[in-house]
Amino acid sequence: MKKQSIGVGLMGMGVIGGQVARVLTDEGRHLSEDIGCPVVLRKIKITPANLERPQVKAMDPKLFTTDEDEFFNEPGIDVIVEVIGGERPAFDYLKRAMTTGRSAVTSNKEVIAKRGAELRAISQQNNVNLRYGASVGGGIPLVAPFMFELVANKLSSIHAIVNGTTNFILTRMEKDGMEFGAALKEAQRRGYAESDPRNDIEGIDACYKIAILATLATHKQVRPDDVYHEGISRLTSHDFKYARELGYAIKLLAIAKDENGAVEARVHPVFIPEDSLIASVNDVYNAILVEGDLVGKVLFFGQGAGPLPTSSNVVADVVAEAQDIVAGVGCRSKWIMQTGTAIKPMSDIDSRYYLRLNVADRPGVLAQIARVLGDNNISIASCIQKETDNAAQTAEIVIMTHMAREKAMQKALAELKGLSVMKEIGNFVRVES
Amino acid sequence: MKKQSIGVGLMGMGVIGGQVARVLTDEGRHLSEDIGCPVVLRKIKITPANLERPQVKAMDPKLFTTDEDEFFNEPGIDVIVEVIGGERPAFDYLKRAMTTGRSAVTSNKEVIAKRGAELRAISQQNNVNLRYGASVGGGIPLVAPFMFELVANKLSSIHAIVNGTTNFILTRMEKDGMEFGAALKEAQRRGYAESDPRNDIEGIDACYKIAILATLATHKQVRPDDVYHEGISRLTSHDFKYARELGYAIKLLAIAKDENGAVEARVHPVFIPEDSLIASVNDVYNAILVEGDLVGKVLFFGQGAGPLPTSSNVVADVVAEAQDIVAGVGCRSKWIMQTGTAIKPMSDIDSRYYLRLNVADRPGVLAQIARVLGDNNISIASCIQKETDNAAQTAEIVIMTHMAREKAMQKALAELKGLSVMKEIGNFVRVES
Repeated sequence: MKKQSIGVGLMGMGVIGGQVARVLTDEGRHLSEDIGCPVVLRKIKITPANLERPQVKAMDPKLFTTDEDEFFNEPGIDVIVEVIGGERPAFDYLKRAMTTGRSAVTSNKEVIAKRGAELRAISQQNNVNLRYGASVGGGIPLVAPFMFELVANKLSSIHAIVNGTTNFILTRMEKDGMEFGAALKEAQRRGYAESDPRNDIEGIDACYKIAILATLATHKQVRPDDVYHEGISRLTSHDFKYARELGYAIKLLAIAKDENGAVEARVHPVFIPEDSLIASVNDVYNAILVEGDLVGKVLFFGQGAGPLPTSSNVVADVVAEAQDIVAGVGCRSKWIMQTGTAIKPMSDIDSRYYLRLNVADRPGVLAQIARVLGDNNISIASCIQKETDNAAQTAEIVIMTHMAREKAMQKALAELKGLSVMKEIGNFVRVES
Repeated sequence: MKKQSIGVGLMGMGVIGGQVARVLTDEGRHLSEDIGCPVVLRKIKITPANLERPQVKAMDPKLFTTDEDEFFNEPGIDVIVEVIGGERPAFDYLKRAMTTGRSAVTSNKEVIAKRGAELRAISQQNNVNLRYGASVGGGIPLVAPFMFELVANKLSSIHAIVNGTTNFILTRMEKDGMEFGAALKEAQRRGYAESDPRNDIEGIDACYKIAILATLATHKQVRPDDVYHEGISRLTSHDFKYARELGYAIKLLAIAKDENGAVEARVHPVFIPEDSLIASVNDVYNAILVEGDLVGKVLFFGQGAGPLPTSSNVVADVVAEAQDIVAGVGCRSKWIMQTGTAIKPMSDIDSRYYLRLNVADRPGVLAQIARVLGDNNISIASCIQKETDNAAQTAEIVIMTHMAREKAMQKALAELKGLSVMKEIGNFVRVES
């Protein structure tokens, strides 16, 4: 039987939900041209608090319910859109949507990163689709290219700026010479950082996103807990000054690699050459660089957050799902996720390193440092010594190494800390090229 | 009935066809995981000349035919892939594929740009799909995002570097100070430019590509003949020197805008601010910047040509089509292309302009130039006068204007040419910001 219309149920009416509701309502006619029949927003599950929002008060009250069972029992809902965020109750809602035969669309990175394997299996068992185009990269077409357009490739690496808050902070530190604390305050003042900013600045948000992308790229389950993460709060204006002098930018990168079986996944600040495209991605923008055996390097750039961009990907998922429903397609994605993935321990990764060391300003210090590095098989690529602090009688030494094993570097750092001439390990940052 | 396998017929066995055949054969098992059943290359239509290629000689001779009817009558072909290029006979082949009930995949920009509206109508009449992901941007996921992931947006503008050959030439002129002729020779030496390079350097190739993207973005037919085009051969090292001084890069951009009904589409060299992301896209790389009402600015970057990247998008289209066939989906794209599109005449566009003028080195010259511009309602934003050639008694004047109407600028240029003090209009280039 030909579908007369596609019914949508929306769970969540915060800033993203409000925008999704607006687009589905205002652009319904234009969207229906792509689908071949009207798409109709039938029911919205809302919290009592959001009932007071002006946008909600301007809409038909019969559209809303605060009752979960009433929402799921509403007839004529073909697609359920979850834009609540967080692991629970979103997981239960997505599960209930799919086990009752409805395809699910979500913008929720946390639930996909943490429970994606289960949700994927549920979608396949129930012959419905699970779409999460807005879970990474806001409005950037990204998840769908990983699912579909890059499917012929073996994807070997991802280097991604996927957190706009930290990219804004790092941009202010680089361009305006701000220290971390001031740049964070500026981000909070502009509404880019939350009052409790830990999820962003410690790299946890980026862990969710790289876990999702790495899983899509490899078809192997990469969980957020598998991703090593380090935040940006240890960076200082000194690091930016040296980076500039050495020809680098500093970015918080989410990195995944799949070269010989074990998957490598990590989030931490990185020195990258200033003439690389990703180095020129500033402010709250996101950029994701992917490398595949056929396609070579491909980069996606855009606004990684915000209600408008996010609604772009959410509504696109609704349209794609509506097209599939009109065509009678069930679960489209056939591959089986490999769980129990071998994850390369952080201690086994290879990298180049930047070291900034505060040492006693006296002869022979550099020789001692060089010996520690040499004993650990770490070779020095370049070295800068500057800025003697006459009062404290300390000097700052900056070292760039050649490729070394993380384990060796950690051992060397511990040994450097033990040197009597060592006042402080100012910072150490990995280098990607 | 559940499909046991998806049969592919391949038309064309040049460098792209060879790569597509290799990927379909070598990666068949991995691709079948995404499809849910095997994908099998059943027949290849080949020219007698290509029968001599080593790759062909290494394959089963029964796979090949030089006979068109034999190819189309081969049983078990569900998808026909055309990678021959050019308008004819590709158009006839794609038409025959679809009128005999097979979906079509092509990498052919010329046939899609020139005959896309007809081919689209044929696909809808026959309830099959026409996919052309590799027709623009080589391996970059681009056509599919325009078709699907950006569907909720009103797309207002496209600024694109879609021709790698000219981008390579411009990069050499900018970075190495080469003149156009030498840079073209270098591109030819490396195999980036053909011995007859007109299609690339005059912007014709870029016209095809922006016509395809503008049509996808607006759902209005934009034909290659609707696109104003100007090549890069008039640019000299002087222009690059002034661009650098003024803070700009020079790129051959394909631009489309759809703001108030009439579509604007043009290909020509452009001054763009050197700190814009697209300005840092060098060598043979492509980048496409799109602006939408929800998504804001999104940029796609990658290798815009070459057999490996192109095969990435061709095979992705085969996989997507195979998934649709397995699911029993016919023609997915329901919108109707608006033909007879209103195209804004080039004379009506608004732009800023860079002018480089060689004038007699005597007092009052600048006043005469300023009067001509002023009389045509063109206001000067900045002006540089340098480099008096003492022998010839000429000076070079560079002017950047504020926004002006193209018609007014062309009239001003004609009047400037008529000034007795004017030795030569060195160049004039539009400026985008």
